Amino acid sequence: MRVLSGIQPSGSLHLGNFFGMMKKMIEHQENHELFCFIANYHAMTSVSDGKALAKGTLEAAANFLALGMDPEKSIFWVQSDVPEVQELTWALSNFTPMGLLERCHSFKDKTSRGIAANHGLFAYPVLMAADILLYQSEKVPVGKDQKQHVEVTRDIAIKFNNEYGDIFTLPEPEIDEDVATVPGLDGQKMSKSYGNTIDLFQEEKALRKQIMRIVTDPTPVEEPKNPDTCNVFQIYRLFMDKEQEADLRRRYEAGGMGYGEVKEELFVTVRDFFAPYAERRKELLANTDELRSILAQGAEKARHTALKTLRKVRKKTGLAY
Amino acid sequence: MRVLSGIQPSGSLHLGNFFGMMKKMIEHQENHELFCFIANYHAMTSVSDGKALAKGTLEAAANFLALGMDPEKSIFWVQSDVPEVQELTWALSNFTPMGLLERCHSFKDKTSRGIAANHGLFAYPVLMAADILLYQSEKVPVGKDQKQHVEVTRDIAIKFNNEYGDIFTLPEPEIDEDVATVPGLDGQKMSKSYGNTIDLFQEEKALRKQIMRIVTDPTPVEEPKNPDTCNVFQIYRLFMDKEQEADLRRRYEAGGMGYGEVKEELFVTVRDFFAPYAERRKELLANTDELRSILAQGAEKARHTALKTLRKVRKKTGLAY
Repeated sequence: MRVLSGIQPSGSLHLGNFFGMMKKMIEHQENHELFCFIANYHAMTSVSDGKALAKGTLEAAANFLALGMDPEKSIFWVQSDVPEVQELTWALSNFTPMGLLERCHSFKDKTSRGIAANHGLFAYPVLMAADILLYQSEKVPVGKDQKQHVEVTRDIAIKFNNEYGDIFTLPEPEIDEDVATVPGLDGQKMSKSYGNTIDLFQEEKALRKQIMRIVTDPTPVEEPKNPDTCNVFQIYRLFMDKEQEADLRRRYEAGGMGYGEVKEELFVTVRDFFAPYAERRKELLANTDELRSILAQGAEKARHTALKTLRKVRKKTGLAY
Repeated sequence: MRVLSGIQPSGSLHLGNFFGMMKKMIEHQENHELFCFIANYHAMTSVSDGKALAKGTLEAAANFLALGMDPEKSIFWVQSDVPEVQELTWALSNFTPMGLLERCHSFKDKTSRGIAANHGLFAYPVLMAADILLYQSEKVPVGKDQKQHVEVTRDIAIKFNNEYGDIFTLPEPEIDEDVATVPGLDGQKMSKSYGNTIDLFQEEKALRKQIMRIVTDPTPVEEPKNPDTCNVFQIYRLFMDKEQEADLRRRYEAGGMGYGEVKEELFVTVRDFFAPYAERRKELLANTDELRSILAQGAEKARHTALKTLRKVRKKTGLAY
């Protein structure tokens, strides 16, 4: 089964990214043919700071590789290193009814908030369709908010296939219902835009500070506490097996344990869990030649698959003359 | 002065194309640095027949080369042989306000006629902007209907330059007011869509038939005729110098000359004028390897210029990491 995943080139990663998406993706490597790219073209719809984008791209690559992305097992590359995807985007544009794009939430949400949209934001589902179809992806793990884009991709692929024969594999979205929504410091979903994140790769001091900011209720130390409504517990359990979780639950319910104490334990756990990854990440970023070379090899493999699709498209559409 | 021109890959050419655009373009080679491409990406907005597009592309190339496009003097290529233009299209999309595209006539005209538009038609001015800006074009000869697209290109380029510094040359449209509007068989502007064309490269018999169909008034042979309202005269004069035109005018005004007679002369003139070009065209189409090699060399030269621009764009936007 070929699985495709694109990730935004953001340097900073939080626990929500890790448990919501990355962990799963890295596990996918064992049983699937994983195609995973850093979506730097997509990022251009919101980032115009070139230096930030370049830096974010390298950092995102280092993050993934440090956390277990294995370039031997998977195909891992930077989107713009296979620029052929833009040619496919154009070919697909001519099979994409305007109405399909006008109905996309990603666009509607911004314009309904009065944001003057650029064409990039409007056209972005076509680029996403090209990403998916160029690599003949079968499964695309997405959040609920991205499910519509996979449906748009299928619609475009069906139209194209109807005209030219079976060029594209029809992808299926994979919406993992049991991915834990990771709560943030304030109990809302952890998200950069809410400013409630616990970041993976940061100085010890800053990490400790974030964790100490987790919002708890005012139950006094000596009284029993409810783990199910406690943000600290909900985050901490992500690092535990069933037994450890049951232990902690008992400590909550017994009373006599303060939130500061659990937070301190959580801090140590998070720090120690990510320490080896942070080490590897640092090495990669200290040696960007190696990093770039890994990415170049990934792009070469990705292009190999991309060109197989693109050659068919060029032949069928008449671009190959 | 660098002049850029894109032409639709249509195999059949008529006198309107020749006198309205091609002749002038071929003359541009003498005094300008001419970049001229066959716009096969653009054609995809209206042509989904792949075989027709591929054939049209080769024929358009043969037409231009036969009529005097000189690949030593100019850069002549097929648009999709420099697919990098699509990457620039994406970069520009993020500097293209939706409103700018919504106001484009090319899109508004179709949708106002109730035609359900595809995204390709909507996005096509961004691709045109990329065509122009990728090659740092200074002048873009266009018909009045395309003037808006050059203005859109300037708007996008200004926004991009404001963000990233002077990357793009701002192009100027060149609208040639004294290009003769060539009348068709029925006196309307000669246009494929009106079915009133005289085609350049066709069998003698068919050419003769077209010319005999030119609409004339019922003035009897012996009476004087008005050359200024006569379609035959208006077409014939395109092939004449001042003196020849004055001679013909005198014959009109003297009476005693039938329209059939002038049509017969016009037929011979058109046939003989294009005969050597038709010969060369036939040779090129009989040896498509040579033709493809000429186009490949053109693409290589075009890419050389394209990459200079694209490297700057990749660096500034952060695609180069």
